[in-house]
Amino acid sequence: MGSPIIETLAAAIGAAKVRTDDATLQERRHDYWVLSHLDDLQGRPAPKPVCVVQPKSVDDVVAVVNTCRENGVALIPFGLGSGVCGGVVSHPDSVLLDMSTMNRTRYIDETNLLASFDAGKNGGEAEREVAKHGLTIGHWPQSVDLSSVGGWVSTRAAGQFSTGYGSIEDMVYSVDAVLPNGEVLHAGKAPRAAAGPDLRHILMGAEGTMGVVTGVTFALRRAPERCAHTAFYAKTMEAGLEAQRVIVQSGWLPVVMRQYDAAETHRNFPDHAHGDDALIIMIHEGPAAKVEAELAGVREIAEIMELDPAPVDVVAKWFEGRNHLHSWEVYLENGDIVDTVEISAPWDKIAGIYRDATQSLQRVNGILVGSAHSSHVYRTGVNLYFTFKAHPENPEDMTEVYNDCWRRIAETTAAGGGGIAHHHGIGRVRKNYIAHDLGDGGIALLRTLKQALDPTGFMNPGVLIPDV
Amino acid sequence: MGSPIIETLAAAIGAAKVRTDDATLQERRHDYWVLSHLDDLQGRPAPKPVCVVQPKSVDDVVAVVNTCRENGVALIPFGLGSGVCGGVVSHPDSVLLDMSTMNRTRYIDETNLLASFDAGKNGGEAEREVAKHGLTIGHWPQSVDLSSVGGWVSTRAAGQFSTGYGSIEDMVYSVDAVLPNGEVLHAGKAPRAAAGPDLRHILMGAEGTMGVVTGVTFALRRAPERCAHTAFYAKTMEAGLEAQRVIVQSGWLPVVMRQYDAAETHRNFPDHAHGDDALIIMIHEGPAAKVEAELAGVREIAEIMELDPAPVDVVAKWFEGRNHLHSWEVYLENGDIVDTVEISAPWDKIAGIYRDATQSLQRVNGILVGSAHSSHVYRTGVNLYFTFKAHPENPEDMTEVYNDCWRRIAETTAAGGGGIAHHHGIGRVRKNYIAHDLGDGGIALLRTLKQALDPTGFMNPGVLIPDV
Repeated sequence: MGSPIIETLAAAIGAAKVRTDDATLQERRHDYWVLSHLDDLQGRPAPKPVCVVQPKSVDDVVAVVNTCRENGVALIPFGLGSGVCGGVVSHPDSVLLDMSTMNRTRYIDETNLLASFDAGKNGGEAEREVAKHGLTIGHWPQSVDLSSVGGWVSTRAAGQFSTGYGSIEDMVYSVDAVLPNGEVLHAGKAPRAAAGPDLRHILMGAEGTMGVVTGVTFALRRAPERCAHTAFYAKTMEAGLEAQRVIVQSGWLPVVMRQYDAAETHRNFPDHAHGDDALIIMIHEGPAAKVEAELAGVREIAEIMELDPAPVDVVAKWFEGRNHLHSWEVYLENGDIVDTVEISAPWDKIAGIYRDATQSLQRVNGILVGSAHSSHVYRTGVNLYFTFKAHPENPEDMTEVYNDCWRRIAETTAAGGGGIAHHHGIGRVRKNYIAHDLGDGGIALLRTLKQALDPTGFMNPGVLIPDV
Repeated sequence: MGSPIIETLAAAIGAAKVRTDDATLQERRHDYWVLSHLDDLQGRPAPKPVCVVQPKSVDDVVAVVNTCRENGVALIPFGLGSGVCGGVVSHPDSVLLDMSTMNRTRYIDETNLLASFDAGKNGGEAEREVAKHGLTIGHWPQSVDLSSVGGWVSTRAAGQFSTGYGSIEDMVYSVDAVLPNGEVLHAGKAPRAAAGPDLRHILMGAEGTMGVVTGVTFALRRAPERCAHTAFYAKTMEAGLEAQRVIVQSGWLPVVMRQYDAAETHRNFPDHAHGDDALIIMIHEGPAAKVEAELAGVREIAEIMELDPAPVDVVAKWFEGRNHLHSWEVYLENGDIVDTVEISAPWDKIAGIYRDATQSLQRVNGILVGSAHSSHVYRTGVNLYFTFKAHPENPEDMTEVYNDCWRRIAETTAAGGGGIAHHHGIGRVRKNYIAHDLGDGGIALLRTLKQALDPTGFMNPGVLIPDV
């Protein structure tokens, strides 16, 4: 047995890089999308790919891309598998490109604050390497130790410190990629350029549909001189969001600003819960004198906005536990279907979306939790990060209940004037809602780009672009 | 007489919007590229377009785009004509789309810090309108009163306050456009999105080759509480650039940081010139306490880096005179060919590029001035803004001398590891150097995009994309 593509790939890049052993195939059938885990548990497992290709160089990637395109075989780029939107689901006819084997640090440049990595580099490792030089990438997704730098770019990620340090598009200096036609792209030569459309943005967020990201160079920061914490209670979510708006629009920029509704405060910080109050936590970083000025400025605004000080140790508690999560299986085996859904909206729309979405979730079959926090702040608005948990009586309804929760949040957000995808990407779970964000014109342009770059559609089919 | 396209356009959008009077055609034969002015003076004037179309609505633009495409007639979008790279040069067979007639303010939203304008809105007017609400766009190109907000997007502009407030891509919330196929695009629904490639970046910097920008919505800032000035002398350009590097990498972010070499200091600020020193000027804006902290931080670094304080009134002098320029004709009629050329590079490459480019300019026929200042600072590097002035003995050599200056700066920059286009765009003057920035892969991708969006190539032909 064995598909002819296996031998063709082996001839192109060497048999050792073309894995067909069961363990390797099993492990990379899908990413960390909860619905794929549910499918596994309920006897609908995603099939194994034809093979898993483990490139060692850009030349290997070029050869794999060309081979798959020429042979009409779907190619699915796979970083470290931490995506949560179904950006990777295997197919028995597809080849999986395991970028974890391209994981070199190319250079760390302390003068120009640049660090360059192969796309498969683990994010936490990359951060620790630059930290040895007193530097930071400043990108702290919850998955930082489980995700790759190429995955950050491909999914257009944002980390927990994005309010101060920006999202991935604000940190990326250059992107290396192999396009579907096998051409090699190095996009981003200078600190800034007015040299036509910014080609890095064709790859950022494309989720493997426009090519394979093979390398990422970051514009770093020096580790901050001072770090300080503040925390406040707000009587309502709306009042707390309004205070955050005033703070950031006044020219202060805490690197972290998060606000938990009462449900999440009681669930995550029971020792710090305060009646029905929302809890706001902030981290302030930078030169010591700037941090001191910001602390005074933020406290003054908090007082004017009638926030109450909260015990500041809650911030350290968040920081220490922020990336510790139960695995999906703990919930699924208990019959609970859970997920998080992040959206964003302008300031005057966000409280309405919070209200409408959490109310709508209450009508879901078996709903147990429908809560939210904010975690990424902009001058123009803020995100919300919804958490839902439902326990339908019949476990066979879990998929339907899951899709119902997503539909309610996406449609409530769109109707309320928000954007349906803040920082996890589109994958499969959102692709039928993306038109709310892009409009007919945007969808048409996205299809035009895809058709131009990948006319046969072999690069990660089924992701990002709506089916019809 | 009259081309059939005139009647077809008149039928599509009304004859009053299709101008054929000589004054209107004459005025819009080209933008503010000095070579077009030289051509005018030396008897090689750019021809008039077939007609100038003055749309009043997006529907008008759609009709014009469709009409030109269907009739195989080139369409040249024209903002307010302040471009300096030859992005607009007319042709007797082309239709010119005068966006200045679409100049409404759509809304100013003080809560979400958004302001939305038709693309033809004058930049200075837009800024003054938001200023009435205590807000600022924060984009201050030298051409602010001569340029349109759509032009800012189409050329990927950066203003004088970019170090603190970012370049156009950091300020644009959404872009409205009519694509070459007549589809309407509204790109940018939310404060931030991970919803595929960022489609705004297809239009930003495309210089009219990928469609017509019809509207721009900005993410504003509140007017700062405090503004302060500092100024320093550096013994050499290299020492001053190094001090700037330390300041910005320490986490301080003066909204303006500029550094003039000795030649430009003597020319622009004769009362403040100090031997062969370079002159650094900075503006600090924000909440008062943050500005105070920054002033102390910057002065401390300046002392460590052995900069000498300069009389601070030089900053006000710069600010007041910053947008006053002689017209090209003053120079050209004197037989002087002049221009400015902006590039950028990582910190450790910029001093070498400064040295090599200014030295190379000394070898140009009739060179009088080859100087530079820096004006836009990033964590990873900085720009340089070269000025050249040459007086070749034979006025017929002015074009050749001009091209020689550009070639020397572009090639020296590329060889030295910099990017050849910082914020004026590509137009015609740089299109044969853009491959230095984009590489073969980038040029191929740019051509792929152009072919996909505009297969007949009718949108602003001859600009941005290299001829061969």
